[in-house]
Amino acid sequence: MKVINGSVTAPRDFLAAGVKSGIKKNRLDLALIVSGIPALAAGVFTKNAIKAAPVIISEKRLKRGRAQAIIVNSGNANCLTGKKGIDDAIEMSKAVTGSMWINNYNVLVASTGVIGKPLPVDKIIAAVPNLIGRLGVAGELSAAKAIMTTDLYPKRIAVAVNIGGRTVKIGGIAKGSGMISPNMATMLCFLTTDADIELKALKRSLRDSVEDSFNAITVDGDMSTNDTVFILANCLAGNPRIRYGSKDYGIFCGALDYVTASLAKDIAKDGEGASKFIEVEVKGAKNKNDAAKIAKEIANSNLVKTAMAGEDPNIGRIASAAGAAGVKFEESKLDISIGGIKIVEGGNVAYQKRPKVKKLLKKSEIVISVDLNSGKAFAKVWTCDLTERYVKINARYN
Amino acid sequence: MKVINGSVTAPRDFLAAGVKSGIKKNRLDLALIVSGIPALAAGVFTKNAIKAAPVIISEKRLKRGRAQAIIVNSGNANCLTGKKGIDDAIEMSKAVTGSMWINNYNVLVASTGVIGKPLPVDKIIAAVPNLIGRLGVAGELSAAKAIMTTDLYPKRIAVAVNIGGRTVKIGGIAKGSGMISPNMATMLCFLTTDADIELKALKRSLRDSVEDSFNAITVDGDMSTNDTVFILANCLAGNPRIRYGSKDYGIFCGALDYVTASLAKDIAKDGEGASKFIEVEVKGAKNKNDAAKIAKEIANSNLVKTAMAGEDPNIGRIASAAGAAGVKFEESKLDISIGGIKIVEGGNVAYQKRPKVKKLLKKSEIVISVDLNSGKAFAKVWTCDLTERYVKINARYN
Repeated sequence: MKVINGSVTAPRDFLAAGVKSGIKKNRLDLALIVSGIPALAAGVFTKNAIKAAPVIISEKRLKRGRAQAIIVNSGNANCLTGKKGIDDAIEMSKAVTGSMWINNYNVLVASTGVIGKPLPVDKIIAAVPNLIGRLGVAGELSAAKAIMTTDLYPKRIAVAVNIGGRTVKIGGIAKGSGMISPNMATMLCFLTTDADIELKALKRSLRDSVEDSFNAITVDGDMSTNDTVFILANCLAGNPRIRYGSKDYGIFCGALDYVTASLAKDIAKDGEGASKFIEVEVKGAKNKNDAAKIAKEIANSNLVKTAMAGEDPNIGRIASAAGAAGVKFEESKLDISIGGIKIVEGGNVAYQKRPKVKKLLKKSEIVISVDLNSGKAFAKVWTCDLTERYVKINARYN
Repeated sequence: MKVINGSVTAPRDFLAAGVKSGIKKNRLDLALIVSGIPALAAGVFTKNAIKAAPVIISEKRLKRGRAQAIIVNSGNANCLTGKKGIDDAIEMSKAVTGSMWINNYNVLVASTGVIGKPLPVDKIIAAVPNLIGRLGVAGELSAAKAIMTTDLYPKRIAVAVNIGGRTVKIGGIAKGSGMISPNMATMLCFLTTDADIELKALKRSLRDSVEDSFNAITVDGDMSTNDTVFILANCLAGNPRIRYGSKDYGIFCGALDYVTASLAKDIAKDGEGASKFIEVEVKGAKNKNDAAKIAKEIANSNLVKTAMAGEDPNIGRIASAAGAAGVKFEESKLDISIGGIKIVEGGNVAYQKRPKVKKLLKKSEIVISVDLNSGKAFAKVWTCDLTERYVKINARYN
């Protein structure tokens, strides 16, 4: 497997574009990704009890397992918008089908931005001809930029992998920043591949891949109403069809996992106001659920995140967060390492190691490792530190 | 019932003092509360899997339901300190009994401060004679100050209530600030009363009162290793003994609830860096657990808390947090009010009301009310906003 240039248009016969529709002031805010032929499609959505209109519409359409285009706007979430929101999401998809030979049901929609404000769907409809006119392989960068909200840079990647003697490509773009949490909060990701693959295998690989990537990141513990991951597979690579559970399936999953993990890490690194990327790993737990609970509690602790921002090895906050996860463990077996230096061993703090760890915290990537020494289960969560800039961005955004 | 002057020394025959032992630089850091006679005693402790040494010792001692003194230090949590920490906590209690005619087992201990650093118990032992020498009714203020960490002001209250023709008094001091969360994170509270009351009634009233006060506050969602609430009842008021479930029990609980709620609100108001006090109430839920989950999710949302700091009525963040609590509800029945103004009704946002609500957010106390209109259960959580000063305090504390 190797990383190649581009993103969603790297696989055969995919085009993309991004334009300014006017939802945002003079910024790219509308993106389109199209496959030349109808593709197999799968999706994963937010678990929030409140679902935005585009989530409801796309979830319904994906039941058929087919799609050809994805239209996405930023600047408005089309959420808490009632019946009109649903109509607007459908109108948005029809705008594409009106100008191209694509079945309305083969268009997926996604939105991100302000909640509770009517979607300016007229602006979107008016911008679609321009959007279609700009479709191209090079359009993927504009598309990646058009889905950004407070992201500081577009997140894109593509990989190529050999399956049965043929080159199969997978590409993706994503947006994240504030409100990123386990369970994919206000996170959008659009994946494309030219792999020839069974629908069942495509669905399963996406679900598993999201679990270990986007569901393993957290910026502030919040989960949004609009989280969406789509994958389109147009099967044009000419590889022998990938069947669920086969060796080729393993290769495909490995490549897909690389793409999603890379985009997920980019999202955590670009968390609002983030100055440091933090990986929290919990091992030696009795089961995966316990490990994940503790890892998330540490990664979501404002006290741990501010200590990291202040570059202080505050072991007490890490230990206290671990203990607050609602999982019982023996304090006398607890080991905690920061950047590979074991500062808690068997529940005792090696206070003299603090200066060494403190120096290490000046780095921009930090690994916090907790070992319960009580089992074999393991979990990993990616997050970022909590800075004054996070508060500034989220208190003074208007 | 009326609020009276003072705090823990307002009930008959209680004395208190606070001194500088040298754990902190030139600040009060050691407190003592003593009843003239052995008292009935009850306690509630942290649910963190990691418990500080003083929590372990006091929990054990409280099994007898008796105590006469409480010694507390700030500046060091005596947590993650292993066997030596346990010994130090016992030494700390013995220091009191060495100089006074109090049984060692009748002394409760509590600590708050840095985790993982050995307790400078010699400093505490050396300071005890001075501490005992300063015991008095007026000493309650020094005691309240000595248990503070990043608190900006001491938290104290006392009330008097008529039970069976006699005046019964209840007093309390508390400390809170950072790391306050449901489940009483790094929160200490010491209560005294001269009520004559059954032990069973005392225990039950404390447990219920804590549930609706200290367990209903959150500053940053973190739960500490040292949370402790003690109550001593020396039974000197001469009232007919209060029995569990009686009318007098109801009167006693009402007064105790007033004391704990008042201290809990003070803690939320004095949350690190807080500029606003926020009450989140969730009603119309199917059961209390659902209501509490949603209230806590909103109260712990960094996005909601920063929006309040920025005085912006960001309904989307409130709705999204409500939906992220893992509780299913119907969006079409959802009502949300801010300061009594209904801005979401039946899942639809009254966007035109925003300016009116925005004006209201300039106040220092804000009520966010969510109605699921699906049942009769109710929950309330108190919190504060999230400001840049919170991050400053918690990133640059050393």
